[in-house]
This record gives sequence, structure tokens and C-alpha cells, in this order.
Amino acid sequence: TFIRGMQTVTLIPGDGIGPEISTAVMKIFEAAKAPIQWEERNVTAIQAPGGKWIIPPDAKESMNRNKIGLKGPLKTPIAAGHPSMNLLLRKTFDLYANVRPCVSIEGYKTPYTNVDLVTIRENTEGEYSGIEHVIVDGVVQSIKLITEQASQRIAEYAFEYARNNKRASVTAVHKANIMRMSDGLFLRKCREAAEKNKDVKFTEMYLDTVCLNMVQDPTQFDVLVMPNLYGDILSDLCAGLIGGLGVTPSGNIGANGVAIFESVHGTAPDIAGKDMANPTALLLSAVMMLRHMGLHGHAKKIETACFDVIRDKKVLTKDLGGNSKCSEFTQEICQRVQDSK
Amino acid sequence: TFIRGMQTVTLIPGDGIGPEISTAVMKIFEAAKAPIQWEERNVTAIQAPGGKWIIPPDAKESMNRNKIGLKGPLKTPIAAGHPSMNLLLRKTFDLYANVRPCVSIEGYKTPYTNVDLVTIRENTEGEYSGIEHVIVDGVVQSIKLITEQASQRIAEYAFEYARNNKRASVTAVHKANIMRMSDGLFLRKCREAAEKNKDVKFTEMYLDTVCLNMVQDPTQFDVLVMPNLYGDILSDLCAGLIGGLGVTPSGNIGANGVAIFESVHGTAPDIAGKDMANPTALLLSAVMMLRHMGLHGHAKKIETACFDVIRDKKVLTKDLGGNSKCSEFTQEICQRVQDSK
Ligand SMILES: CC(C)[C@H](C(=O)O)[C@@H](O)C(=O)O
Ligand SMILES: CC(C)[C@H](C(=O)O)[C@@H](O)C(=O)O
Repeated sequence: TFIRGMQTVTLIPGDGIGPEISTAVMKIFEAAKAPIQWEERNVTAIQAPGGKWIIPPDAKESMNRNKIGLKGPLKTPIAAGHPSMNLLLRKTFDLYANVRPCVSIEGYKTPYTNVDLVTIRENTEGEYSGIEHVIVDGVVQSIKLITEQASQRIAEYAFEYARNNKRASVTAVHKANIMRMSDGLFLRKCREAAEKNKDVKFTEMYLDTVCLNMVQDPTQFDVLVMPNLYGDILSDLCAGLIGGLGVTPSGNIGANGVAIFESVHGTAPDIAGKDMANPTALLLSAVMMLRHMGLHGHAKKIETACFDVIRDKKVLTKDLGGNSKCSEFTQEICQRVQDSK
Repeated sequence: TFIRGMQTVTLIPGDGIGPEISTAVMKIFEAAKAPIQWEERNVTAIQAPGGKWIIPPDAKESMNRNKIGLKGPLKTPIAAGHPSMNLLLRKTFDLYANVRPCVSIEGYKTPYTNVDLVTIRENTEGEYSGIEHVIVDGVVQSIKLITEQASQRIAEYAFEYARNNKRASVTAVHKANIMRMSDGLFLRKCREAAEKNKDVKFTEMYLDTVCLNMVQDPTQFDVLVMPNLYGDILSDLCAGLIGGLGVTPSGNIGANGVAIFESVHGTAPDIAGKDMANPTALLLSAVMMLRHMGLHGHAKKIETACFDVIRDKKVLTKDLGGNSKCSEFTQEICQRVQDSK
């Protein structure tokens, strides 16, 4: 059933606290009258004939049709040869860019203030190639694969993102002093993209230097673009600066217009079903999704309501320092959204 | 000329500010009556017949004879095929463990207090193998090499270090969820070392999780052991937590009893020769060296004097927030050392 003026988004509630925080997001979207209708799909990897683990066909079909997805945390079953669900999703939809805005949240105290940066991680190759060999007994090699095509794609995406989001600079993060050919290729593609985007400032920095400078003064950074593993590290480091994975949104941009937005925290099985979870990371990911879809007004309204509730400190979930339930925190945000009209 | 009761240490003053900060350390050692005599050697890589860059033979001979070295910053000449001086030294003396204690300095303000941890980095292989290929046009691979021997050696060193330095726990840092074979081998060797060292607590953690937790609360960490690149990143990150490379000591432990202690900051050519440099990192590296040599009394005396001067905030170099010269800061530490008798 398609409703006129509404866009359909594939919702993958996920495991553990996933369904609760998904419900929270849906409620808040409804309160905000966001023109989104949800198509819920369960994603538990299944084994295709031959043994390969795949995303269930109906979930895949839904994503390919709707292009846009929102996903809660997924647990990776412990079965021999079972890939990480995150990796499987990245692969299935060629989600080549992982984007994580890290912005200090007023009222949520961390050692840092005024953090406002974005990590853009190449999401398909590098150290994640999965190619490894035993050379001789006791000697193992892992292959880091860097291609011109993937490097160019992510470099260009970084500049495009910077321009679309009114950001002034892009920093390429690398270790081309050590991996001269692979990181060298990545860096060269960043430089080429910089040449074509002279309105955005470009700098390059060694990964170790970025880490050192980041913890000394994160406000010096804006958009950062980097190969896969460096992005894995830096995106988590930066999430730590603003309060952790419970408040950090994430988006995965793929080929052919596909994009999946997700909370990157775990499934928290210990508190699942107890109405204790914090829906902030998934909500802010959904806000990122709205912006990606061009729905800036709804995005702003929901984001403001969420930040207002956190700043007021009256109704907060436990991990945020309060003693309210997930449903109460959600209700409070809904109230603010409605009041804001 | 050998003086009875004195141990000879090879001193590599280095480039830029290297000679000034080396002089500072020698003065303070003299004031503390540390039983060390210095054998100064210049290290500028030279090209052997055939074109290979090598450490000058007299410097190599001195290090092999004395076993212990102290080194200031070295600049890497920009010549085709010239390796990083740091890498060349690590290779020449098989310096397999890079050890960096990161301890909060009272009076030197950073966003963190009570940091007290040590990163132990495998220093010879991993992503630093230098093996790279172009597979086809636009596709490059870098090889990360992990061996049983090097992994075992560093794992055992970490536990030995923990025991000798009265530290309670060792955390192995890895991405064995992604690099199952290579990081898997590294992790296995850490587990085996843990089995043999049950008096020291052992934990394992993903690199990304360590980074996130590190910036949220570094006091939860003690000794961390990890492959080469992860150590490059984490050691700089941790240096950032306590004030940067200007105050962070470093030691490189090699085979056959060789060890080189060094400041890891740069040569600072802009202030070289101007009596403005901060000798703290080299001095604290020299203190580490004294401890390594079993000279705990002298180590303690010098370290205390240095920390006292920093805490008092009266005589500080510019980078530490004061306006004193390197020689004045040095003189003040000498004074404290002498007063402490
Ligand atoms: C779960 C794991 C495979 C994943 C990664 O290493 O990429 C995670 O750390 C992430 O950042 O999404
Ligand atoms: C200078 C460079 C080769 C070196 C490295 O990457 O190991 C440096 O960052 C270090 O940590 O000593």
C-alpha cells in the first residue's frame, strides 16, 4: 500500500534492543509527521544452496526497491564460517562509504566540547579483503587491497559530502610513508579529487598524527576520509569523544542510490525487552537519513527535540545518566516535536 | 677510557634540537652523579657499495659494544629510496619491542588525569613488511606479515615487562575478527604467553573498542600489547592523552640485550639552536634507560626533579606554557637533583 507523498523505507529492526529502539524511532517520526512509511524486514543471514551465507531475498528485494534503509543492531550468529552481519550487508549492497558525524551534544558531558567532525570510511576493501594465507608454518600474510576505483569513489564522495553539508575542509588520513604503494594510491586519488574541488580545503595527515592531534584538540578537524581499517579505528575513537556509540549516528552509502543508516552499538541482550534501551543513536541515524532524502525540515525538528531533551536532563535513559524508561524518553521527544509546531 | 663503576652508553644526539636536548640530559645526569659515561656517535645513513642505506659502521659498532643507546630526533634525508632513519635503526638492531609508558604529569593540564599505562608495540613486521605489489593496473596489495616467532617474542616480552614493572594486567589489542589468520596468530601467541604468566591478568580487546574506551576512560588500561601498526597509532594516541610527544618517553628493546631509548618528537628545525627546546621527552627516555639498567635510585631522583619543576610551573619552556630557555629549565632540574641529596 503506497500512500501519496510518502516515501517507503526498509526498516530492519534487528536483534536484542533493536525492536524497542525501532519502535521509538517510528513513534517520533509519527509525531513529527515525517512523510515516511516503513517496510519492515527481518535480516537473519540464511545459507544459500552451496553453503554461502546471504541476506534473505525478501529483505534484499525490499532494499533494492526502496533504496533507503534504517537498521538496528544485528547479532552475528556463532556458526562456522558465518560472516559478520555488518560485513555481509556492506558487501551485498556495495555500501562503499561509511559516514559518521561526531558532534558534541550539549548537556552530555565528555572531556571535549565543540567537537564537530565527520569520518568518511572506505567500506569495501583495504585490510578487509579477507585474503589471507599461511606462507610456511608460523608465517601468515594478510593482504590489504587498495584499488584506484574504490579510492577514487570514496575521495570524490568525501568532497561531494563536504560541499553538500557546507563543510570547509577534507583531510586524507593515511600511512603512505609506510605503505607507499597502497596508501600512496589512496592518497593520490584524494589529491586528484582535491584538484577538482578547489572550493574545499584539502590537507593530508598521517594516521598516527591524526590520533595524537584528535585527543589533544578535535575541534581542528572537519571531514576526514580514509581507508577501511583506519576508518574503523577513527570512527570509534571520535564516537568516544562525544559520548560513545549510544549517541553516534552512522550512514552507509552504496552504489545505485542505496543507503543504509544504522546505530553502530551492539544488541545489548542484557537489557533487551526491559524498556531500558537508549534510542538516540538509531534516532540520530534516522535524522541523517531524512537529510540524505532531502527532508531537512523534519530532520531539524526531530534532532532539536532529541537534543533539547538531553540538554534538559529531566527525562533520560540510564546510560545517559537518568532513570527513565526508553518509552518515557521517547514520549518526551514526541512531546517536544509536537510542541515545536 | 673506561672509568671504574661507570657504564658506557652510546649517545646519538641527532639533528635539529637533538644536540641541545642531549646536552641538557648530560648536564642533569652529571648533577645526579649517574654512573654513566657517554660515547657520542653521529648517525646519518650512508650508502654502502651497492646502494643500500646503512647506519655508519662506527655507530653500529658502538651500539653493539655498549648495548645501550640514547638517541635524539633524526631527520630523514629526502633522497630517492632513503628509508626512514627510525625504521633503519629498528631493522639494524632488531629492536622488536617499542615500549611507551604514558603517565599523566601533575601540573601539565590535559583533558585526562591519572593516566598510567604502557603501550608495547611489535616493531619489526606486520604492516611494516615493506612488501607491496601492483597486481594489475589500479590494483595494489600491501602485505601484512605476522610470524609466530615475532608474535611470541613480543607477547612474552609484554608479560615479562608487566611483572618487572609491577603491573597487574596485559591487554592484547587486535582485529582478529577481520584478519582471522594474521591477527589470529598474534592473539594465539598472546593467549599462550598468558597461560604461562597466570600472575598477570590477561584480556583481549578489538583495536576499535580500545580506541573508543581509551578516550572515554584511559585509567582502565594498564599494559597493552599489539602488532606494529596498531602500536604506531595507539602509542601516539596515548601520548596525546598526557600532553604529546614533548613529554613522552620511549624505549626500543632489541635482541641480544641491545636497547635504544629515544624521544619520539621531531627535530623542530624552526627552533633548533635557539635554546628554546624542551628536553623532557629525551630526559624521561633517559630515565627509562636508567631503570632498564637497574639504576632505580638515579632514575627516581631525576624523574622526581623533572616532575617537580613542571608541577611548580615557575621555570618552563615555551611549549610547556612558560617562557624559560632550555638551559634555564635544565639548570632548574639540576638544582632540584642536587638539593634532593
Ligand atoms: C563488527 C566489525 C566487523 C566492524 C568492523 O570491524 O568494521 C565494526 O567494528 C564496525 O565498525 O562496523
Ligand atoms: C616515522 C615513522 C616511520 C614512524 C612509524 O610509522 O613507525 C613513526 O610514526 C613512529 O612511530 O616511530
